[in-house]
Amino acid sequence: LGYIMAAEIICVGTELLLGDILNSNLQYLGQGLAALGIPHFYQTVVGDNIDRIHQVLEVATKRSNILIFTGGLGPTADDLTTEAIASYFDTPLKRDEAVVADIEQKFASRDREMAPSNLKQALRPVGADILPNPKGTAPGMIWQPTEHLTILTFPGVPRELYAMWEETAIPFFKDQGWGQDLIHSEMLRFRGVTESGLAEQVAHLLSLANPTVAPYASQGEIRLRVSAKAPSVEAAMALIEPVATEIRSIAGNDYFGSDGDTLTKVVGNLLKLKSQTLSVAESCTGGGLGSMITEVSGSSSYFLGGVQSYGNGVKIKVLGVPSELIETKGAVSAEVAKAMAIGVQELMGSDWALSITGIAGPGGGTVEKPVGLVYIGIAHPNGTVEALEYKMGTTRDRDLIRHLSSCTALDQLRRRLLVNQEISG
Amino acid sequence: LGYIMAAEIICVGTELLLGDILNSNLQYLGQGLAALGIPHFYQTVVGDNIDRIHQVLEVATKRSNILIFTGGLGPTADDLTTEAIASYFDTPLKRDEAVVADIEQKFASRDREMAPSNLKQALRPVGADILPNPKGTAPGMIWQPTEHLTILTFPGVPRELYAMWEETAIPFFKDQGWGQDLIHSEMLRFRGVTESGLAEQVAHLLSLANPTVAPYASQGEIRLRVSAKAPSVEAAMALIEPVATEIRSIAGNDYFGSDGDTLTKVVGNLLKLKSQTLSVAESCTGGGLGSMITEVSGSSSYFLGGVQSYGNGVKIKVLGVPSELIETKGAVSAEVAKAMAIGVQELMGSDWALSITGIAGPGGGTVEKPVGLVYIGIAHPNGTVEALEYKMGTTRDRDLIRHLSSCTALDQLRRRLLVNQEISG
Repeated sequence: LGYIMAAEIICVGTELLLGDILNSNLQYLGQGLAALGIPHFYQTVVGDNIDRIHQVLEVATKRSNILIFTGGLGPTADDLTTEAIASYFDTPLKRDEAVVADIEQKFASRDREMAPSNLKQALRPVGADILPNPKGTAPGMIWQPTEHLTILTFPGVPRELYAMWEETAIPFFKDQGWGQDLIHSEMLRFRGVTESGLAEQVAHLLSLANPTVAPYASQGEIRLRVSAKAPSVEAAMALIEPVATEIRSIAGNDYFGSDGDTLTKVVGNLLKLKSQTLSVAESCTGGGLGSMITEVSGSSSYFLGGVQSYGNGVKIKVLGVPSELIETKGAVSAEVAKAMAIGVQELMGSDWALSITGIAGPGGGTVEKPVGLVYIGIAHPNGTVEALEYKMGTTRDRDLIRHLSSCTALDQLRRRLLVNQEISG
Repeated sequence: LGYIMAAEIICVGTELLLGDILNSNLQYLGQGLAALGIPHFYQTVVGDNIDRIHQVLEVATKRSNILIFTGGLGPTADDLTTEAIASYFDTPLKRDEAVVADIEQKFASRDREMAPSNLKQALRPVGADILPNPKGTAPGMIWQPTEHLTILTFPGVPRELYAMWEETAIPFFKDQGWGQDLIHSEMLRFRGVTESGLAEQVAHLLSLANPTVAPYASQGEIRLRVSAKAPSVEAAMALIEPVATEIRSIAGNDYFGSDGDTLTKVVGNLLKLKSQTLSVAESCTGGGLGSMITEVSGSSSYFLGGVQSYGNGVKIKVLGVPSELIETKGAVSAEVAKAMAIGVQELMGSDWALSITGIAGPGGGTVEKPVGLVYIGIAHPNGTVEALEYKMGTTRDRDLIRHLSSCTALDQLRRRLLVNQEISG
């Protein structure tokens, strides 16, 4: 494949193949390489086996010229990374006496004696440099076994890897000229639109090279990540800004915020801006909406409280929903959603009130009122009340239907606060 | 390399290389293959790029004969997995009309129209079978493009992958003769004990070979996984049972259930058994406790509802907490916790009532009442009321303090229901 300037991450450890531990090092190193602007096209995980590590080296050395190994640097017999790399390049191992002294000193500082097996951790291929480990006994190495190929090894223990990456690897790569250009991103967040729908609206932007635009979707929220590569954060933001502005203008009110702006924070900020208060009446969500609103520290300045009217008795007695309404329309109906919203607005004396009543499943659905049918009531400060009907789908599970119900209620309130905003402002 | 019977996991997604998301699918699939006894020597991650997916196929088809792909099945232009696999094997793509109908139906059940781009998700190489997706729009495939090579594709979204793995892939592999010696586990669950404390109590069991006993800890819950390898579930259970019984006897009431017995389900079952009802009054949790209780479908038979008394005005007006009490003792106090519990018990007419008031942080802490100080009130059916004080620690974050508060309230109710149980039974 010839000479390509790219890194490859190679994690060594049978415990990773067995799924005994979650491989978070891939994410850490992926972010680390991205921050330095080092291209990185492949990640490989292999067990504690010399032949297979050789096979991975055979493949990786043909397609990548910076190999970043993690794991297999410990003192036990199945820690094979250093040995496997040295033998692949037919290079003898040599014990580094400075490393032996360092390991002995680390054991002494913990009032322990070094076991003979730890001597293995002082071996490195002739010609390799030590990559010091400030947090553990096993050092890594930096080695250039052939022209245009650099190998770095790190332990698998995350906190040791992090310290070594930050203290030694990043300065090493910067010395080599990497990391002069950084990658900066803005994550734009949307509700009320599908991933495919939004992707079609911004299709002409998805093929841009710098900044790039990439869509993500999770639990009813759609995201577009706009990433730019530039010598400084300011320069990257200057590349991002016109594209982000165009996307915001296309998406209109479906865009609710960027990066750390959660729906809950955005709604809270709008309420604070207008000095208005909110209360909630929750049936199928059982408290999930209030819990979401109070995730924000300081939410007490606009959130008064609510009623978890799970049983019909509570809807009638505490919220004043007429029992005839429940009998004739059903607890899951637009009429009951409205009565719940008005009831909690009066009880709490809030400006706005949201209510949710629905069939979260898996039981309780009928042909007329299937699982996923949810009504959201919104009582406005001017005394009007409305109810919105949603079909969240019969295949989604209870947790997701409840989560989407709370998010949708907040999102609808957000849209109404924005409209009020435009009128009053 | 010849013909080796082994699986390889191949994850497709540039967002994985950039470290935008943590790749938990590798662990899930690693565990899944291990449980079936399928050897698995390599895992590969590659970006959304056809040439590089071809390069990965070139390597993987030489060393593995079951390829498990995740990711790249979405509707957008950078979702390339199906296309890349088909073109590698020079096989044309064909649209599956049954899949089109299924996707259209899923959109309709959510009251949405299918975007044209979703049609792409109905394409598969000629000769491939569909691997149905009960949780999302994109199905996967099972395909044998050549003798001795089987390819399975899954979406990258974990909950969709899990459902497809369990419902289709496991039965498929069992049909092929895998997973005859199976691994069966019981996960024992505990509250009110530390991981190291429990590990010391059961230290003599941690070195067993079959079954094995392994401790886990997460968000205040401690778990011991007892795993046995045997030809049948019954044989495995026979190995597990004596060890699990010994652990339960050591742990006493700190053990609350096994496997899918969540704290919420266990408390619900105890309430159902006694035909008693529950209501809640929540301050700092804002609805989280009620939301947790109503995670259980059918919880309406014992959970009446609650009041999210976030503001002090709601505590006074709706729950009848005397305002002098709030002024003299503070909203976060044993006295107010008791008054909240009694107040909601009377309002809802429930047998039991739980209340929570605390300082979830990060703001609002003082020397006398630091962040993490939480009072839990418990109103009993016989009219007595008690308050318990907890210091959840000043370094934990808001989310965790709120979560632990709800769990602790449920756990304390569980212990009281068990005591009542023993007396009445």
